[in-house]
Amino acid sequence: MSAHRIDALQYCNWSRQIFEEWRIGGLDAVHVTVGYHEDFAELVHELKRWDARFREHGDLIMLGCSGRDVRKARSMGKTAVFFGVQNPAPIGSDLGMLAICHRLGLRFIQLTYNLQSLCGAGWQETEDSGLTRFGRQVVAEMNRLGMVIDLSHAGERTTLDGIEASARPVTVTHANPRWWRETNRNLPDTVIRALAASGGMLGFSLYPHHLSGGSECTLQSFCEMTARVAEVMGPEKLGIGSDLCQGQPDSVVQWMRDGRWTYQPSDAVFPDQPVWFRSNRDWDGIAAGLYAVGFSKPEVEGILGENWLRFWENAMVQDA
Amino acid sequence: MSAHRIDALQYCNWSRQIFEEWRIGGLDAVHVTVGYHEDFAELVHELKRWDARFREHGDLIMLGCSGRDVRKARSMGKTAVFFGVQNPAPIGSDLGMLAICHRLGLRFIQLTYNLQSLCGAGWQETEDSGLTRFGRQVVAEMNRLGMVIDLSHAGERTTLDGIEASARPVTVTHANPRWWRETNRNLPDTVIRALAASGGMLGFSLYPHHLSGGSECTLQSFCEMTARVAEVMGPEKLGIGSDLCQGQPDSVVQWMRDGRWTYQPSDAVFPDQPVWFRSNRDWDGIAAGLYAVGFSKPEVEGILGENWLRFWENAMVQDA
Repeated sequence: MSAHRIDALQYCNWSRQIFEEWRIGGLDAVHVTVGYHEDFAELVHELKRWDARFREHGDLIMLGCSGRDVRKARSMGKTAVFFGVQNPAPIGSDLGMLAICHRLGLRFIQLTYNLQSLCGAGWQETEDSGLTRFGRQVVAEMNRLGMVIDLSHAGERTTLDGIEASARPVTVTHANPRWWRETNRNLPDTVIRALAASGGMLGFSLYPHHLSGGSECTLQSFCEMTARVAEVMGPEKLGIGSDLCQGQPDSVVQWMRDGRWTYQPSDAVFPDQPVWFRSNRDWDGIAAGLYAVGFSKPEVEGILGENWLRFWENAMVQDA
Repeated sequence: MSAHRIDALQYCNWSRQIFEEWRIGGLDAVHVTVGYHEDFAELVHELKRWDARFREHGDLIMLGCSGRDVRKARSMGKTAVFFGVQNPAPIGSDLGMLAICHRLGLRFIQLTYNLQSLCGAGWQETEDSGLTRFGRQVVAEMNRLGMVIDLSHAGERTTLDGIEASARPVTVTHANPRWWRETNRNLPDTVIRALAASGGMLGFSLYPHHLSGGSECTLQSFCEMTARVAEVMGPEKLGIGSDLCQGQPDSVVQWMRDGRWTYQPSDAVFPDQPVWFRSNRDWDGIAAGLYAVGFSKPEVEGILGENWLRFWENAMVQDA
C-alpha cells in the first residue's frame, strides 16, 4: 500500500472536477480554507455549502476531523476534507467560540491573516508587537481542543511568539523560505529554526508570489530549495500546502486582499501557476522532482503526506 | 441663561432615578456607553433598550446626535443622550459598519478598550505597536462621518498615532494625568501635550481607580490637578467624563474586565465613589471646587460643559 498523500492548504473553486482531480492526484486529505475575512455567520453558511458538497459528491469526499479520518478516507477511496480559517475573525473576542468552531469541524485556525488580528500581527502590518493577551488565551484553548495553530500569514514576531507560547507544535501550512523568494510573506531563518526546534512543521507553498521566479519558477528550483530546508529542519518536518486556488475568479483574490477593511480596493489578479503544478493531477511530478534532487522514498513520501498525517494525528487529539 | 453642562462618559444602571438626577445636576447632555465587548447584534439590542427608555422617560431624556440636539434638549428641559462604544468590536473588520453605526445614532467610538483591537493597542497590553492599517481606515471614515474618536483606553503609542492620523481633533473622554495617579490607564505628559497641540480635548475621570488617593481623593486635589493641566492644555480644552457607574452590580465591572476573552475571571469589584461625587446631584459641588482653586466663571462653565458643546458641534458635522 502506497503512502498517504496530503495537501495542507487549498482554496479552489470547488466542483466535482476538483474532487475528481484530488482522486487522480492520490490525495487522501486536503485542508481547505473555509474563511478569510468572514464572520461566524458567514462561516456557518460556508460549512452548509460543504455539507451540500458532501451529500452530492459523497463518492469522492468526506469530512475529516482526525488523523483516523485520513486513514478511513484512504480505505474508502475518498479524500478527507479538513476545515480551516485563515483568520480568527469568526471567534471575535470570544474564547468560547473556539469549542463551538471545533464542534462544527474546524481543525485549523491562522492566528492572523495579512493584517492585525485580535491575536497578533499579520505580515502586511509595518509593526508586529507579537501575540496579544487574547492571542495567548486562544493558543492555550486551541492546544486543549486539539486545533492546529497555523502561522502562515503572521508577522515574524507573532510567529515566534506563537511557536513559544504553544504547548503543542504549531505549523506554517503554506509558505517558503525568504532567502528563496524575498517577501515578508515567506519565512526568515529565525522562524524556520524555531519551528524546527519546537517540533513544528512547514508546508511549502506553490503559490507563484511565494516562489522564486514566480510563475516561471522551475520544479528543479523548488525541489532544490526543499532539499536545502530539509538540511536545516529535517525532511520529516516538511510537507506541502500548495495554496492552490484553481478556477477562482480574480474577485476572490481581491476579497482575500481587501476583505471589507478598506474603501481603496486593490486590483489584484491571480498569477498563473507554474507549468508543473496547474492542478491536483500534478502531484506525481512533484514526487519525481523530489527524487531527482536526491530525496529517498521515505523522505518523498513523508513530504507528500506521511509527515502531515503523523503531525495531524498528534495535533488533533483533544486533551482530557 | 446658564451655561450648558455635559458629562462625556457615564455607564450607570439606567433608571428613572438616574435620569431625574441628570436633571437635578443640570446636565443637558451625557455620552453614555452602549457597548464594551458587545458585538453588533448585541449593540442593536442595547439601542432598542434605549429606545424603550426614550419612550418611557421622554419627559426627561431624548436621543442626541449633534451639537444642535444639546441646545434643543436644553430648550425642552431634557437631557440629550449620546451613544458611544468603548471598543470597536461592533464593526469587526468591516469599514462599512461605521456608516451603519452612525445612522443608528452612534457618535463616539473608542479605537481600543483595554486589550488589542483591530485598530490599535489598549493600555493593558504589554506592547503597543500603534494604529494598525485598519485603524487608519477607521480614523479616516470616522472623520468623514463626524464620529468622535475617543482614545481613553488606548496605549500611549496608539493614542499618539490616533492624534496624528486624525484630520479632526480627537478626544480622551475619561482619564487623568499619570503624574497625579500612576497607572497606564492615565495619560503621560506626551499624550497631554500632543492632545492639546492637536486641538483635542481631555475629559477628567471621576472613577476612583483614576484618582489620586482613589476613593479617598479630595475635591481639592482633583481641582488642583485640573488647574495644573489647564496651565498646559488651556482651560478651554478640558471637560469632564465622570465614568460614573452608579448602581451597577460588580458583575458589570467583571464584564468590563473579562468580556469573553478569558476563562480566568477577575474578581473585580466597583470601588466606592469619592464622597463629593456619588451621583449627578453633585455637579454644583465640583463647580464650587473649581472656583475655589481660582478658575473664572467662563472657565468653570467651559469645563463643565461649554467646551464639550463647542467640540462636539464641530466634531459631529458630517463631511460633504
